[in-house]
Amino acid sequence: VAFDALGAEGGAEVAVEGIGRAVADGIAVRAFGRPDELGDLAPLAGVEVVEAPALIPNDIEPAAAVRSRSDASIVRAAADVAEGRSQALASPGSTGATMAAAVFAMKRLRAVQRPALAVQIPTPLGDLPTLMLDVGANADGRPAHLVQFAYLGSAFAEAVLGLTRPRVALLSVGEERKKGSQLVVEAHQALADSTGINFIGNVEGQQVLAGAAEVIVTDGFTGNVTLKTIEGTAKAVGDAVRQAARSSPKAGLGGLLMRGALGGLRDRLDPDQTGGAILLGLRGVAVVGHGSAGPEGIANQIRLAARAVSEDAVGRTAQLLERGGAGRSALRKRERAAVAAGESGRG
Amino acid sequence: VAFDALGAEGGAEVAVEGIGRAVADGIAVRAFGRPDELGDLAPLAGVEVVEAPALIPNDIEPAAAVRSRSDASIVRAAADVAEGRSQALASPGSTGATMAAAVFAMKRLRAVQRPALAVQIPTPLGDLPTLMLDVGANADGRPAHLVQFAYLGSAFAEAVLGLTRPRVALLSVGEERKKGSQLVVEAHQALADSTGINFIGNVEGQQVLAGAAEVIVTDGFTGNVTLKTIEGTAKAVGDAVRQAARSSPKAGLGGLLMRGALGGLRDRLDPDQTGGAILLGLRGVAVVGHGSAGPEGIANQIRLAARAVSEDAVGRTAQLLERGGAGRSALRKRERAAVAAGESGRG
Repeated sequence: VAFDALGAEGGAEVAVEGIGRAVADGIAVRAFGRPDELGDLAPLAGVEVVEAPALIPNDIEPAAAVRSRSDASIVRAAADVAEGRSQALASPGSTGATMAAAVFAMKRLRAVQRPALAVQIPTPLGDLPTLMLDVGANADGRPAHLVQFAYLGSAFAEAVLGLTRPRVALLSVGEERKKGSQLVVEAHQALADSTGINFIGNVEGQQVLAGAAEVIVTDGFTGNVTLKTIEGTAKAVGDAVRQAARSSPKAGLGGLLMRGALGGLRDRLDPDQTGGAILLGLRGVAVVGHGSAGPEGIANQIRLAARAVSEDAVGRTAQLLERGGAGRSALRKRERAAVAAGESGRG
Repeated sequence: VAFDALGAEGGAEVAVEGIGRAVADGIAVRAFGRPDELGDLAPLAGVEVVEAPALIPNDIEPAAAVRSRSDASIVRAAADVAEGRSQALASPGSTGATMAAAVFAMKRLRAVQRPALAVQIPTPLGDLPTLMLDVGANADGRPAHLVQFAYLGSAFAEAVLGLTRPRVALLSVGEERKKGSQLVVEAHQALADSTGINFIGNVEGQQVLAGAAEVIVTDGFTGNVTLKTIEGTAKAVGDAVRQAARSSPKAGLGGLLMRGALGGLRDRLDPDQTGGAILLGLRGVAVVGHGSAGPEGIANQIRLAARAVSEDAVGRTAQLLERGGAGRSALRKRERAAVAAGESGRG
């Protein structure tokens, strides 16, 4: 796994500790960063440190930066995968830069128009996390993109999460197939006609955490807002529970007695648990980790990348996309008919 | 207030009790439903029961139903406002039917292209609720609609919620003005040029409950998904806290000691607190309440409608829309330029 060690917001110390934990699991890591900061990795078998002095920050336009900064850690790490020295990329650095570097270096799978960012959403009750995509690779979408996301997510859920015929749902504002934006209504129709995936229809926002489907498909704008809304709401409710525990001595004692049980909930909701998001639709594996990850989060980013390789997520995704050709051509036919009829698509 | 008593899922008993509480506050109510079921209201001063035997259910196409069922409670209640016998409409019935009946009977304010459904989002920490719109009146949006929603929301926050220069934000996937869908980027530009409202830029999903703005503007699809995601996440975390309290005798005792403090949190998150959503942009007041509301929720729906009347929400909204004419014409100019340049808008 090529790991962008420079991208960790916690600094080299956190990166070194996290890499060490992944290596202890038997994963070989090539760590991209400043060798003087990563010196503690030198004694470890299974780690190579590769010099890459520059960091692409969050606030600059990623595509241009990735093209011009060949000395950047994320650019060199992505190139390492493209050139076959590593089998997967993982980075806790800028999401935009990681996605741009990965797409630039690894290219898309045949027939994939847009890669999608997929994330396992931690569930408060400890059920199997739901995979949601796209959570931000694309700001606008077309129905054909959502259909591809369904195949990408289904393949990943089968290959890496080990699910059989995962239920795939479309995020909308009502369960009926005519409910939703034009984008979603058209995608629903195409998904209903698709083969090779287990499409169960629409789900609404309140069902995202309720285990209604194993894969939830949406456009990158809605997915990003939904994911961040879940994080914000869980945090706000958690803060309110803590505030309640401070509201009186009696409640404080109650909070103390519940601390162990609530700690389990906090751990389940910790974004570090899942290792972060994964960019699907490329000819290689790219894990887009949380910048604020602690050592265990860093280790989980690397573990997720390694698991995607060992389960051949890319090959199995390509296969499922081939099998799903029928659904896609049905959609293309409808799109051509719509264009011919003078209707305009969205986006 | 014309109240659609037949729309309450809890039945006539809940409706009667809720109406009674609102009337006790000095609000005059005309209750639409089946007189034999609403007999308990007869002795109350300030209530008139108006016969309307038919209910429009959730699962039929609302616009057609509203046009054809002149005996439906929601149709008669909306017409009552249009004909001047009542000053505001409130209904816990089908959201689609309530919106359709209200738009059909009351018409839109001059210059309003699309009415928007606005809701006060309950905050876990008990801060001032944020007003979010549109949460579902429109499935697709154009930049000009979002700009109008900003004016509608700002005017309502000033008139009914009593806020001075409420901060208005646009929901997006990043704070930078270029972040987001094409729809949001164009709306941001137009809002930045607008006068008469306090536009503070973009907010992300995790800021919706964090008090980052008093008014959050989004399209009806994203807003509906966001609102339901908040409800679902709060419920899932709440369920997990209850599950934690059942996980051991120690935690159970802790939960018992915290019960009072957590009850306050539960009350704050109870959708019945705010009375439901309000349809903005019409020449009259229309409150779209929760169908599952209990008596206090019903009373709050009627109170919200009465407050909107006494604070002249409609008149003040019309005024603010007039003042904001500059921002709208800047947008129209840009839209014309875009069309001339051969670009295609979204939606």
